[in-house]
Amino acid sequence: MEFQDLIAARRSVREYDTRPVPVELVMEIIADSIRAPNARNAQPWGFIVVTNPAMIRRLSDESKKNILWDMGDNPSSPYAVYRPILENGDFNVFYTAPCVVYIAGPRDVRTVAVDCALAAAYFMLSSADRGLGSCWVDLGSVIRDPDLKREIGLPKDHVIVASIALGYPVRIPAMPPRNGPRILKVVE
Amino acid sequence: MEFQDLIAARRSVREYDTRPVPVELVMEIIADSIRAPNARNAQPWGFIVVTNPAMIRRLSDESKKNILWDMGDNPSSPYAVYRPILENGDFNVFYTAPCVVYIAGPRDVRTVAVDCALAAAYFMLSSADRGLGSCWVDLGSVIRDPDLKREIGLPKDHVIVASIALGYPVRIPAMPPRNGPRILKVVE
Repeated sequence: MEFQDLIAARRSVREYDTRPVPVELVMEIIADSIRAPNARNAQPWGFIVVTNPAMIRRLSDESKKNILWDMGDNPSSPYAVYRPILENGDFNVFYTAPCVVYIAGPRDVRTVAVDCALAAAYFMLSSADRGLGSCWVDLGSVIRDPDLKREIGLPKDHVIVASIALGYPVRIPAMPPRNGPRILKVVE
Repeated sequence: MEFQDLIAARRSVREYDTRPVPVELVMEIIADSIRAPNARNAQPWGFIVVTNPAMIRRLSDESKKNILWDMGDNPSSPYAVYRPILENGDFNVFYTAPCVVYIAGPRDVRTVAVDCALAAAYFMLSSADRGLGSCWVDLGSVIRDPDLKREIGLPKDHVIVASIALGYPVRIPAMPPRNGPRILKVVE
């Protein structure tokens, strides 16, 4: 797809049909993602691909539990607005996505957050270019249980930066409104 | 340009010709950038565009000075490898770029780093799509002097996340080697 059409077509998708995403296709998207620029070409990103529905459910439950714990009774938590869905046992933070991809890197790499975010931008664009929908689901990233970490292959020294739901969209939602560009200053 | 061709063509460019980049063109690239996904559609990104050569020079000098100060005598600083160029008074961290763009956002927004990095990924792809070269120059982002901050319109509560050199490339460099994708685990 032409880049201009692609950035217009890419949406955060929250309704997926049941069609599974072949792992081979996810690997192609990951191969695109690692072409992203990154600090000192250190490529600190690692990828975890989950297509097992029971595991996706466990990851959602674990993350919801931890976010609720962190939030406590703090009404000014940035997550406070999500309390009702976090407390709803039926709610899956990944919606009905048949695939979840984590992008993670070593905690002690100073640029790990921005490097992995750059790869995530490529990941989401590449997904849209291939007719898939995706959504960065921050609510699904707070995984702390050591057994679960081991089961998904997350090294002890790694932090999950991006948590992305992936699947075939039921429909392409409208683009949420954008503010005009906030130009702080032009120094000519 | 087709997305697949674009991610192959985009490079971190460090040699720019003297042709200026029209501010109108930078504004078009910024308009593309703000289509990036971001947490809760809060769009925390703000943009500073600098085409004044004397100001670009001052920003380079200020950032070099601060990084050298932070590094002190610490040989394990991630910047230690850059000491020779940082200590070289003639070296401009932005190379010969005729334009520098900062992407900045409020320090207290938890997701400011990843949100601005997502916009930066779009910015660099859009630049390449328009025949421009760019380079995220981390060495140019450490601006602390209050007068300088005021002159470039950086609000007191903002942090610079991305510092991007922009211009017409003298030549397109070869793609630096990428490691194979680091797949931590596939859970099927």
